[in-house]
Amino acid sequence: ARARDYGVSPGVMAPGNWNAITDVKGVMVGHISLVEGDNIRTGATAILPHGGNIFQQKVPGAVYIGNGFGKLAGSSQVQELGNIETPIVLTNTLNIAEGIIGSVEYTLSEPGNEQVKSVNALVGETNDGYLNDIRQRSLRPSHIRQAIVQAKSGPVEEGNIGAGTGTVCFGFKGGIGTASRVLPKQLGGYTVGALVQSNFGGVLQIDGRALGEELGQYAFHQQLESADGSCMIIIATDAPLGARNLERMAKRAMLGLAKTGGIASNGSGDYVIAFSTAESMRIPYSLSSDELLTQDQVANDHMSGLFMATIEATEEAIINSLFAAEDMTGFQGNKVRALPVETLYPKP
Amino acid sequence: ARARDYGVSPGVMAPGNWNAITDVKGVMVGHISLVEGDNIRTGATAILPHGGNIFQQKVPGAVYIGNGFGKLAGSSQVQELGNIETPIVLTNTLNIAEGIIGSVEYTLSEPGNEQVKSVNALVGETNDGYLNDIRQRSLRPSHIRQAIVQAKSGPVEEGNIGAGTGTVCFGFKGGIGTASRVLPKQLGGYTVGALVQSNFGGVLQIDGRALGEELGQYAFHQQLESADGSCMIIIATDAPLGARNLERMAKRAMLGLAKTGGIASNGSGDYVIAFSTAESMRIPYSLSSDELLTQDQVANDHMSGLFMATIEATEEAIINSLFAAEDMTGFQGNKVRALPVETLYPKP
Amino acid sequence: ARARDYGVSPGVMAPGNWNAITDVKGVMVGHISLVEGDNIRTGATAILPHGGNIFQQKVPGAVYIGNGFGKLAGSSQVQELGNIETPIVLTNTLNIAEGIIGSVEYTLSEPGNEQVKSVNALVGETNDGYLNDIRQRSLRPSHIRQAIVQAKSGPVEEGNIGAGTGTVCFGFKGGIGTASRVLPKQLGGYTVGALVQSNFGGVLQIDGRALGEELGQYAFHQQLESADGSCMIIIATDAPLGARNLERMAKRAMLGLAKTGGIASNGSGDYVIAFSTAESMRIPYSLSSDELLTQDQVANDHMSGLFMATIEATEEAIINSLFAAEDMTGFQGNKVRALPVETLYPKP
Amino acid sequence: ARARDYGVSPGVMAPGNWNAITDVKGVMVGHISLVEGDNIRTGATAILPHGGNIFQQKVPGAVYIGNGFGKLAGSSQVQELGNIETPIVLTNTLNIAEGIIGSVEYTLSEPGNEQVKSVNALVGETNDGYLNDIRQRSLRPSHIRQAIVQAKSGPVEEGNIGAGTGTVCFGFKGGIGTASRVLPKQLGGYTVGALVQSNFGGVLQIDGRALGEELGQYAFHQQLESADGSCMIIIATDAPLGARNLERMAKRAMLGLAKTGGIASNGSGDYVIAFSTAESMRIPYSLSSDELLTQDQVANDHMSGLFMATIEATEEAIINSLFAAEDMTGFQGNKVRALPVETLYPKP
Repeated sequence: ARARDYGVSPGVMAPGNWNAITDVKGVMVGHISLVEGDNIRTGATAILPHGGNIFQQKVPGAVYIGNGFGKLAGSSQVQELGNIETPIVLTNTLNIAEGIIGSVEYTLSEPGNEQVKSVNALVGETNDGYLNDIRQRSLRPSHIRQAIVQAKSGPVEEGNIGAGTGTVCFGFKGGIGTASRVLPKQLGGYTVGALVQSNFGGVLQIDGRALGEELGQYAFHQQLESADGSCMIIIATDAPLGARNLERMAKRAMLGLAKTGGIASNGSGDYVIAFSTAESMRIPYSLSSDELLTQDQVANDHMSGLFMATIEATEEAIINSLFAAEDMTGFQGNKVRALPVETLYPKP
Repeated sequence: ARARDYGVSPGVMAPGNWNAITDVKGVMVGHISLVEGDNIRTGATAILPHGGNIFQQKVPGAVYIGNGFGKLAGSSQVQELGNIETPIVLTNTLNIAEGIIGSVEYTLSEPGNEQVKSVNALVGETNDGYLNDIRQRSLRPSHIRQAIVQAKSGPVEEGNIGAGTGTVCFGFKGGIGTASRVLPKQLGGYTVGALVQSNFGGVLQIDGRALGEELGQYAFHQQLESADGSCMIIIATDAPLGARNLERMAKRAMLGLAKTGGIASNGSGDYVIAFSTAESMRIPYSLSSDELLTQDQVANDHMSGLFMATIEATEEAIINSLFAAEDMTGFQGNKVRALPVETLYPKP
Repeated sequence: ARARDYGVSPGVMAPGNWNAITDVKGVMVGHISLVEGDNIRTGATAILPHGGNIFQQKVPGAVYIGNGFGKLAGSSQVQELGNIETPIVLTNTLNIAEGIIGSVEYTLSEPGNEQVKSVNALVGETNDGYLNDIRQRSLRPSHIRQAIVQAKSGPVEEGNIGAGTGTVCFGFKGGIGTASRVLPKQLGGYTVGALVQSNFGGVLQIDGRALGEELGQYAFHQQLESADGSCMIIIATDAPLGARNLERMAKRAMLGLAKTGGIASNGSGDYVIAFSTAESMRIPYSLSSDELLTQDQVANDHMSGLFMATIEATEEAIINSLFAAEDMTGFQGNKVRALPVETLYPKP
Repeated sequence: ARARDYGVSPGVMAPGNWNAITDVKGVMVGHISLVEGDNIRTGATAILPHGGNIFQQKVPGAVYIGNGFGKLAGSSQVQELGNIETPIVLTNTLNIAEGIIGSVEYTLSEPGNEQVKSVNALVGETNDGYLNDIRQRSLRPSHIRQAIVQAKSGPVEEGNIGAGTGTVCFGFKGGIGTASRVLPKQLGGYTVGALVQSNFGGVLQIDGRALGEELGQYAFHQQLESADGSCMIIIATDAPLGARNLERMAKRAMLGLAKTGGIASNGSGDYVIAFSTAESMRIPYSLSSDELLTQDQVANDHMSGLFMATIEATEEAIINSLFAAEDMTGFQGNKVRALPVETLYPKP
């Protein structure tokens, strides 16, 4: 189920065809879920900016850190050089290393990369240790490679899947969610897509409705619930943007998270990764010394529509992660219920 | 009028006595408004962290930049040294220099500062050029000093006053707004106060209600309205915090702005200044070379309640700026209406 | 006198025609010096990226902060938007506001700027309070405008002039210095120029020679000398660079400062401002909503030569400021001697 | 051999007992070197802030990025929370993941950490791919654990060892180097230690002597040599410092690198990690909600001596890495000679 099936449609801009990050042409998403026995509830999700050799044809990229209690690998090189050269991998906190190995092995083995000796794997995480026996570090590098090679365009599975298999959001079952927005022609007609791995808390608000208060379930309520946890957010766009304006877009994703009631608590790893798929902005691995990079970019003055689309798509992606998720029992018998969508949004 | 008079009370935490930044003990606010003839609609607002010699007893402070299209003077020294040594002054974009002079002259002339040769004035602004003939640069340094010396504790005037005299927010009259939150005892019992100079746009949302859509007035609506403008936000707390955790609090104020529908557009100067009034955290100007600074601080792990309070207080301060503002006509006959509070929130 | 007149030529790259920031085509420098009575020893220096209307044809720009105990106005907007829209003004610490007014008035009155309501003046400073009665704040906005309109290309006056009139460096008289480097054709053939206002301390080293130790004059020597003070550094280049790579170049200027023995002490305001004069990189004030910015840029991989040139030009500019400076007596009879160049570098 | 054996003693401050990072009480260093067959020339080095359970008794820490073309894992959490909770591990670029696993496994298995579900491994690297067949990714997590558990106080082995086994610096064999400085009593009497993994280029300068030019071997010389490569720098001190002032110290390490002729080229991963061993500054993992962190810190005003010590120790550590290294032949028969110390510094 998705939010729009229940009449929940935050914001004023129109979504794209699949209302998913894959509405940005070329973007592909792959999941691998690991649900084994009573205790293993985890997985990984890979987001590919395009279907070619990403290392040879890097995309402009940026990382914005909403709250840095997290282990995102590869952030400093993206921030320095303004580009992304590998698939983006999301997984659990203690499997970051396997995520790196999977991404590095995939990159080293791609045809054309035989001489490559340095790879900046971009691997984010949230902590699924309530439902998953995270200390087992169950994911293998081969799982990561599987998520990468299975990535495809079209509709994206949401909820208890991939890196969202074992996550919890606002006290309900969270997971993977996605959404998109298309700007009106007069604002450039660009598409902005968001994908989230939701695993955080606060005071839940859905398109303005104060559900956290309504259900009596929110951070610091009787000092019982914790707001901790994290949210990894990926923003894709076909607008031709350089790293600086991508970072500004990434920053706005946190405003979308705020609208769902997130508070970016101390223990949160809230990281946003943004990239542009515009072919004119690709950064070739090798460039002769007298070649310049020719780039036609959206000017600062025309960024506000993209900012607004980022906020809306992020808000809806988080909500979608809650609508799509289902009840789950896991590690040590811990149980997390899905948001009671049918009750809260009864169909007429 | 204030939001709570109409039943609008965002969030789940309790406000302080005056529901104002001055609920943080020691904090004082002073306004100077300049409404002259048909064209001058501007002013300044000064916020004092305490009533003593601020230069001699600096307070820990931080600046977070939500979007940097603005002219905040003094930010880099606060970020480097982690302290604030002057009153915080808010005014219009083209009167930043007069703000600096007023603040520097005030500081140089304070008893005890006779040998001072370096002063870091902290002066922020938003652009009131729609209602105010801003190119006249009408404020004098003496106006700024007046705002500083008139500062007082207790209730804070809101709306078309001080630095908010000529500002516009979501297409309605904006201005000064303030609010506060008191943490429950188990979370430390600290107070957090916010004061805003609201002058920005987006898609107005008041405590979850989608007023922008309801009234058909929001950014990019028919590509007519602009989302540009800015918001200066001041956060005060009596919690003993150092600069790093104050900066983290400041960052959360943008989440409060997001909940009102702000999008931090390209042309926005969205700056947040945060400080702690805790006496144990004061930084004396002179310290002998064998003295250490002794500071008892809130640990990272106990920051989340303060983050949540910051979000709530900022959201309500912005809403209060709209509820308190009144219709205004100014420069070139430009007219801005106040939010039609009575119509939108009819009393039973 | 200049360092090369005495055989001092740091680095391995060749200087430009004037060995000055003005070797970067289009760059102009203007000084105004105020030496009045016994106590006033100050001034201002303006650096113009090009001779046209800078506000209408902004240049890509960046600010890097080596140590932020300083009052540089305008830094946050440059960092957010990646461009510079006014002359760069250097002056003394307590005349920052007059620098802003002079720069704002100049910009507002330029033909074509009649409707401009927002100006980001970029004004840096160091503290000349040992030789100058700085609390008098002697500079007027008219002085600043004078420095701007008098700016010209060609050789640049160094030493006790403009913003360097009253500054002190490594215990000797400092001031304005400049130098440049031209990259070999195979590295792009670009020019990099540096201009400094030197006013800092440490352990003086000139092209490897440990002069501080030789002369027994350096920071913490008998705990007498202070290393405090500041250095404003301006880097210009004709290489087509965007804000991100300009910031990386700016960062390298601090490596040049390090080679002279600077330590970026706690009290230093060490700010570097970098810009590109490449016409293809200009950012027009107005752009229709369907226009993209077309920019041909140097790729990351080809930046290292520009980094090295920045280091060398900065090092030599600082040394030049010392070679050109002359003895000065000022405020309260304070006396600062010039570096005894003739003794240290006897001509054969 | 060490620099001081040849009369090379950069700076004016005195070194500590071992002239090593281990002069900072409690700091321990462990190496593991892997030299196998013709092609494997790599290793890892672990630096432990203290001998206890680091996760339970975290140390204040900071990361400063001189140039971010590198894969340092764990940086964002250190920057957000201001503390370090694991040993610092240095290794080669493509073994970062094994570094993380080794550090995470070590931490999870420490007595007292049985419930820990989140570990921020801090693992840096430089690229030893010229002498080492880096694509083999030869290090195993067990190697990393070995480096950690073998760590000890006292003299530190330098040159071709640990993470420095296969690195190259200024065209000569580089490797591990270390040095320290003790501040005079009047400046606090603190110790500052540096350890480097040197693997970068530029124009070599040793204590002011222009060796790069002398030997005709430097970056861009005939466009043959490359300046790329990286330098990992670790700074330890017993001065009681919080994260903000540790970051400022870390920033100064780049000034020390500059004095050796480094230029922080585009391809450099120049990362500095700084921490304080002061017991009064430890950050316990668990703190009850009404406890504050009590910390006696060095004030900003007394930081400059520590800055100078950082610059000197870093410069000498890099020089020591060159003096200690020896000729090496490795991958594909590549050969790198050691700096010809005996020739350059003939003993009388």
